[in-house]
Amino acid sequence: MNERLAIGDGTLVDEFLRTREQSLAFCAPLDVEDHALQAAAFTSPPKWHLAHTTWFFETFLLKPFLRGYRSSEPLYEMLFNSYYNSIGEQFPRPQRGLLSRPNLAAVHDYRARIDAGIVSLLGGAEADNPAVRERLRLGIEHERQHQELFFTDIKYSLAVNPLLPAYQPRASLAADDAPAMHWLRYDGGLLEVGHGGGEFSFDNERPRHRCFLEPFSLASRLVTNGEYQAFIDDGGYRRPELWLAEGWTAVQEQCWDRPLYWMHRDGEDLEYTLHGLQPRAAGRPVCHLSGFEVDAFARWAGARLPTEQEWEVAASAAPAPAGGVDLGVYHPVPAPPPSPAGPTQLYGEVWQWTQSAYGPYPGYRPTEGAIGEYNGKFMSSQWVLRGGSCVSKAAHLRPSYRNFFYPPDRWQFSGLRLARSTD
Amino acid sequence: MNERLAIGDGTLVDEFLRTREQSLAFCAPLDVEDHALQAAAFTSPPKWHLAHTTWFFETFLLKPFLRGYRSSEPLYEMLFNSYYNSIGEQFPRPQRGLLSRPNLAAVHDYRARIDAGIVSLLGGAEADNPAVRERLRLGIEHERQHQELFFTDIKYSLAVNPLLPAYQPRASLAADDAPAMHWLRYDGGLLEVGHGGGEFSFDNERPRHRCFLEPFSLASRLVTNGEYQAFIDDGGYRRPELWLAEGWTAVQEQCWDRPLYWMHRDGEDLEYTLHGLQPRAAGRPVCHLSGFEVDAFARWAGARLPTEQEWEVAASAAPAPAGGVDLGVYHPVPAPPPSPAGPTQLYGEVWQWTQSAYGPYPGYRPTEGAIGEYNGKFMSSQWVLRGGSCVSKAAHLRPSYRNFFYPPDRWQFSGLRLARSTD
Amino acid sequence: MNERLAIGDGTLVDEFLRTREQSLAFCAPLDVEDHALQAAAFTSPPKWHLAHTTWFFETFLLKPFLRGYRSSEPLYEMLFNSYYNSIGEQFPRPQRGLLSRPNLAAVHDYRARIDAGIVSLLGGAEADNPAVRERLRLGIEHERQHQELFFTDIKYSLAVNPLLPAYQPRASLAADDAPAMHWLRYDGGLLEVGHGGGEFSFDNERPRHRCFLEPFSLASRLVTNGEYQAFIDDGGYRRPELWLAEGWTAVQEQCWDRPLYWMHRDGEDLEYTLHGLQPRAAGRPVCHLSGFEVDAFARWAGARLPTEQEWEVAASAAPAPAGGVDLGVYHPVPAPPPSPAGPTQLYGEVWQWTQSAYGPYPGYRPTEGAIGEYNGKFMSSQWVLRGGSCVSKAAHLRPSYRNFFYPPDRWQFSGLRLARSTD
Amino acid sequence: MNERLAIGDGTLVDEFLRTREQSLAFCAPLDVEDHALQAAAFTSPPKWHLAHTTWFFETFLLKPFLRGYRSSEPLYEMLFNSYYNSIGEQFPRPQRGLLSRPNLAAVHDYRARIDAGIVSLLGGAEADNPAVRERLRLGIEHERQHQELFFTDIKYSLAVNPLLPAYQPRASLAADDAPAMHWLRYDGGLLEVGHGGGEFSFDNERPRHRCFLEPFSLASRLVTNGEYQAFIDDGGYRRPELWLAEGWTAVQEQCWDRPLYWMHRDGEDLEYTLHGLQPRAAGRPVCHLSGFEVDAFARWAGARLPTEQEWEVAASAAPAPAGGVDLGVYHPVPAPPPSPAGPTQLYGEVWQWTQSAYGPYPGYRPTEGAIGEYNGKFMSSQWVLRGGSCVSKAAHLRPSYRNFFYPPDRWQFSGLRLARSTD
Repeated sequence: MNERLAIGDGTLVDEFLRTREQSLAFCAPLDVEDHALQAAAFTSPPKWHLAHTTWFFETFLLKPFLRGYRSSEPLYEMLFNSYYNSIGEQFPRPQRGLLSRPNLAAVHDYRARIDAGIVSLLGGAEADNPAVRERLRLGIEHERQHQELFFTDIKYSLAVNPLLPAYQPRASLAADDAPAMHWLRYDGGLLEVGHGGGEFSFDNERPRHRCFLEPFSLASRLVTNGEYQAFIDDGGYRRPELWLAEGWTAVQEQCWDRPLYWMHRDGEDLEYTLHGLQPRAAGRPVCHLSGFEVDAFARWAGARLPTEQEWEVAASAAPAPAGGVDLGVYHPVPAPPPSPAGPTQLYGEVWQWTQSAYGPYPGYRPTEGAIGEYNGKFMSSQWVLRGGSCVSKAAHLRPSYRNFFYPPDRWQFSGLRLARSTD
Repeated sequence: MNERLAIGDGTLVDEFLRTREQSLAFCAPLDVEDHALQAAAFTSPPKWHLAHTTWFFETFLLKPFLRGYRSSEPLYEMLFNSYYNSIGEQFPRPQRGLLSRPNLAAVHDYRARIDAGIVSLLGGAEADNPAVRERLRLGIEHERQHQELFFTDIKYSLAVNPLLPAYQPRASLAADDAPAMHWLRYDGGLLEVGHGGGEFSFDNERPRHRCFLEPFSLASRLVTNGEYQAFIDDGGYRRPELWLAEGWTAVQEQCWDRPLYWMHRDGEDLEYTLHGLQPRAAGRPVCHLSGFEVDAFARWAGARLPTEQEWEVAASAAPAPAGGVDLGVYHPVPAPPPSPAGPTQLYGEVWQWTQSAYGPYPGYRPTEGAIGEYNGKFMSSQWVLRGGSCVSKAAHLRPSYRNFFYPPDRWQFSGLRLARSTD
Repeated sequence: MNERLAIGDGTLVDEFLRTREQSLAFCAPLDVEDHALQAAAFTSPPKWHLAHTTWFFETFLLKPFLRGYRSSEPLYEMLFNSYYNSIGEQFPRPQRGLLSRPNLAAVHDYRARIDAGIVSLLGGAEADNPAVRERLRLGIEHERQHQELFFTDIKYSLAVNPLLPAYQPRASLAADDAPAMHWLRYDGGLLEVGHGGGEFSFDNERPRHRCFLEPFSLASRLVTNGEYQAFIDDGGYRRPELWLAEGWTAVQEQCWDRPLYWMHRDGEDLEYTLHGLQPRAAGRPVCHLSGFEVDAFARWAGARLPTEQEWEVAASAAPAPAGGVDLGVYHPVPAPPPSPAGPTQLYGEVWQWTQSAYGPYPGYRPTEGAIGEYNGKFMSSQWVLRGGSCVSKAAHLRPSYRNFFYPPDRWQFSGLRLARSTD
Repeated sequence: MNERLAIGDGTLVDEFLRTREQSLAFCAPLDVEDHALQAAAFTSPPKWHLAHTTWFFETFLLKPFLRGYRSSEPLYEMLFNSYYNSIGEQFPRPQRGLLSRPNLAAVHDYRARIDAGIVSLLGGAEADNPAVRERLRLGIEHERQHQELFFTDIKYSLAVNPLLPAYQPRASLAADDAPAMHWLRYDGGLLEVGHGGGEFSFDNERPRHRCFLEPFSLASRLVTNGEYQAFIDDGGYRRPELWLAEGWTAVQEQCWDRPLYWMHRDGEDLEYTLHGLQPRAAGRPVCHLSGFEVDAFARWAGARLPTEQEWEVAASAAPAPAGGVDLGVYHPVPAPPPSPAGPTQLYGEVWQWTQSAYGPYPGYRPTEGAIGEYNGKFMSSQWVLRGGSCVSKAAHLRPSYRNFFYPPDRWQFSGLRLARSTD
């Protein structure tokens, strides 16, 4: 067996099955109707996530590798293809919520059928085929990414409902103050970034390569709700000089004047969370901000966003990541005590926007064939975010992981950490 | 008891309960997920129809008349208000499909609660209040209109799904030829139109009034699929001289080249119906046409659309209506044999576009208060349709009934009957 | 010679030449650059009006009737075709302002060439051809309609400029009070409307036909700025119950809260006019209102809009029309003293919206061929306006003239006269 | 005098006046009407360019530095402000073509007034104020940038006219073949890029800084029309696997199937140029391509776009720039003979898209105040282009100059040079 594809003490098939069960477990608190919600074209319904991740295994493993496999539902190839042009036509993304059929039970059946197929594949002659194992690994990681998207999407869709349903009710979240922020200095120089180890990584994290960095400083912790409120109180949303031109246009066209999900009712500052409406604690990391907003905040604060290389260099020197969705708290928690050794809150709270446009590393090569559409074709107009949020899978928390979204996007758990150049 | 409000041998409360049960019965073939479908802003999800018709009884009967009534779900007032500005704010129409909560079970509960309230109201001191009885009558008729919309809307929403689900599977529909069409001559003169009898009518059918008509002729039957195919084959969709200017713009912008739901697969002419994909029979009435298309067809045929007065005058002289959704065939059926006595297919097949813009009759007065928003405020930019379709309630089939839609609308069961001026 | 086509003591060719000169005279106050202005797709640049009216004579007279005629600029056929699909393709309407070439001098040359061709045609063998004379008459009336549009369009386009240029500077307009309004009663009955005389009329005014009217009353004069201000002050733009549903949507989407061109600066009520910014006099007819606004005003006032038949019946009994653009005052003037004999201000102030949808009269037949596209194809979604405004040609002021615009349109000189049903 | 601000043998005031005259000379072939053309929101009318460059001198020099200066037209501050939010409100960009007033003569007067003011300022006490001299230098460079935009914009606007007017008629352009392309190898390493010399540079070219480059190769010349035709013939516009996801969306939504301005008439391959319609020569550099198209072409060719650092390193080692609009040929000319010493066609033909997102250099600081809005606020979603085109000013041709446009933009003279990574 290719040890590189195993994680911990589990075998690959166990990991596959655990991941598949996890997706269903995440859906358990939902009503049948919730599974179809798609409040914006950039979100997908939970049922669609369940079906699409299954489609991925069927398309890239069962169809090419399982002898005699025939799809029992040929139209699913089109219905649950997200964006793989090489596979064929796709059902229009903005209409995914209109697929009442297959219904939820039928999608559960589809999952079970494909799971059985994968188990059968891994018990047969192809079990040691490296291509099979690599694609299975990619399929597992792919499903983990969709587990995170499941949370961001269902939060967005439930929030449209004036009843403001909670995904999972919970007592009010703790709300201690954040420790004072201080600057951590880094020397820069000719350094290496990118993923180089033996474990799994996505193609966009590779190859590991050299880059030259000037000295810089990074904030010891994330920016808080309280600090962001000060920006608002100082007219942050009304001062064009603080904004990129595209950001200022977005402020005006979309009438932004606070983070997504912030509300004010009966004199109380609240925010909508997956645990329902909650008091908004000043010490928690500010969240659900676009790239334009964090960029304006940083300028207002006399600082800037880090580059993705700066972030990675700092994170590589920090302790191993912890946190993420596996903790079961679906909302950024208060800041931990300051650590003299380095930055806190790198992972498991909010994704941290960087100033880096998402592009290929020097020498980047996408995978051959349709799977090559996974990352490379999105390398325009997006910005890189680093770290990981409270709904990210622990398995995705690593210094080299590159998340990417369009700078106006706000529905991810996205916030910021300040940086500055050091003389 | 106010006899005027009873129909047939039932009492008003029986009729109320039968109508309420009917709405649920119509939904029975659907999956839970189907209840949330809204494929376009002009359609509403089945669940929303169920809730909104209930809201109507709660808002206009229980709240004002049932002593001590308190709503257990105050937000429903906003969620299920369709367009009554006098009542208050409304949840945005295009997002009705995003209301996963209240879920279907909760909407069923809501219906049961309100039904009990109405029964209680009718068993109490207000039972003989004429305002109560009139509003109850209006609520019943209102729900019947929504039962028709339920069919047109779910057909539209299911059709978006490439799986083309059938609302109710059925063996292929009969497909005999239509009898030859002939012209029926009417003398015109100073005549009366509008509803004048003692039975229920909507405010827009009143008052009965005089109008002067020149002599005219009306086609003995509806235009068929086969006749419409001839229009297409003759370049009907490519000849601007046949179209109103707005119609020609619609043809080009929306790429119309056939009626909605017509399909062609593997050499076969098909149409999507509530019974699934069916062969398209030349003798059946053509259906799902916009006002612009029927206007162009009539011009191509050397004829014109009737005015609503012409239609009503002819229908008033014809035998009593029959047909509608109560027959359980959710698709226009082949033409009956010709009747020497007058026009056939006036009711129960397709709504027949007229050339008349929808406006107030001379002396029209909308009802006082919020209920006055029922009809009057829509009297601009729409055209009147007359008759009734295969999914109309039998109770709505009458000569004076005025249906109205925007001329580009195609998702109703709408077709045409030709007319011409007679020298 | 066909006397029917002559007006007054002039011959047809003189009238043609006078009309052509008039178009240039109306443009005289403009800069070269003003001739290209098109501030919205529904307006056309002055230069385009000059060229299109010329194209009309070239297309419908010189090409078919002048022996040996060959166009020196074949592309003009497409550039200056407004909407005649039977003639061929058209340059996109919203881009007319982008045709810097032919430049103004070249358009003047084009006019001169075509004028010479018409004079030559009328001096030759075809001079007595009735088709030629009828088309020439239509061409003259067509150019008169464009002379009116010239004023409405240039006003709209100049108003976009913050410099608020005056088409023609002028001392402040007189501002006396309006006389009190009173109601004039009409009996109704079986009456005739439509154009029936020997003089020119457009096809949409014909045939003269019978209609039945209930008794009604009409206001003695137009609604004034002062009365409309009272509507605003009473919350007219904030009360949905006063509005048609489409109107209320327009109010919200377009943020209407006053008539087009009303301004308020430094404590003074002003309106932008073709004579520049002017004080807004309470006694002048209110102007530049959409159909939705006048409909809401009438409802607020406890009245309604007249039907076009009611207006025509009243106007037919009134003295002959006077006024229009020929007076050289490009703005509604204060109301004249009341006339015991009948309504004042029927013509020459503002077009008066009616409640009638624009449609064909019974027995209406459009002209054969491309000229048939003149009126008939616009018979959907528009409302009829009657009377004539301060920028209408005197030759167009008659009881039977039917103007038509979409109910949201505001850039015409459009106002209202109230009506009500009489018991 | 601050020698740094002089170029060649001229003094600053001479250079100012020469630049101002040049702008008028470039407009000389135009009709008055052409000066107002704005065919898309991303272009500006020639008259607006003339006024806005004048506004720049008035706003940033006369108002702050010329004692007693008072603007004779206060509204110009708003009318001709492009995007400087710190100065105040701006007239809406898409409507610049609607400003018929001030007319062309008035804009010429405005230019003369401001020129006189600048001469007066430079003859007075502020002549040696470094801030004055720096802003004057920036104003000159700013006007040179607008001189280039003048050409790209007027080409786009004239092309909308079916008459296809030539800005400047000319005999057909020479059309020799291009020499064979070969690869030039560069070692990479830790290198310096950015502007470091004493001459003028824009803030976005600074500071000069270190970066690390892997070895790479650059094409000896630009990609030609013939090579791009081969891409089209090979299905380039129909193969999604060649495109970035956003690019593929643009291909489909905008129906791209060839470069902007390519035409095919009567069997001949043509392209619209500032010299009118011309035969399309296979050996000329391909031009008017979006970033998405050049990216797809490079992928098809088995290569990639260079980074901006790669381009600059290569250009810094090449001979001094030559070419640009000063030659009076407003279209890319055929390739020069190959040079053994290095790449040809770096400047003066077409701007060369790079794969680099436009962002701040490490340590970048925008200028203080409103002038800081010049470059920095546009640092999102755009790509860097390097080199210079046939309509660029010679003074702007230098290795460090960074041009930037959105990847869908096609109206600039933009093409490409291939690169590849070297093992």
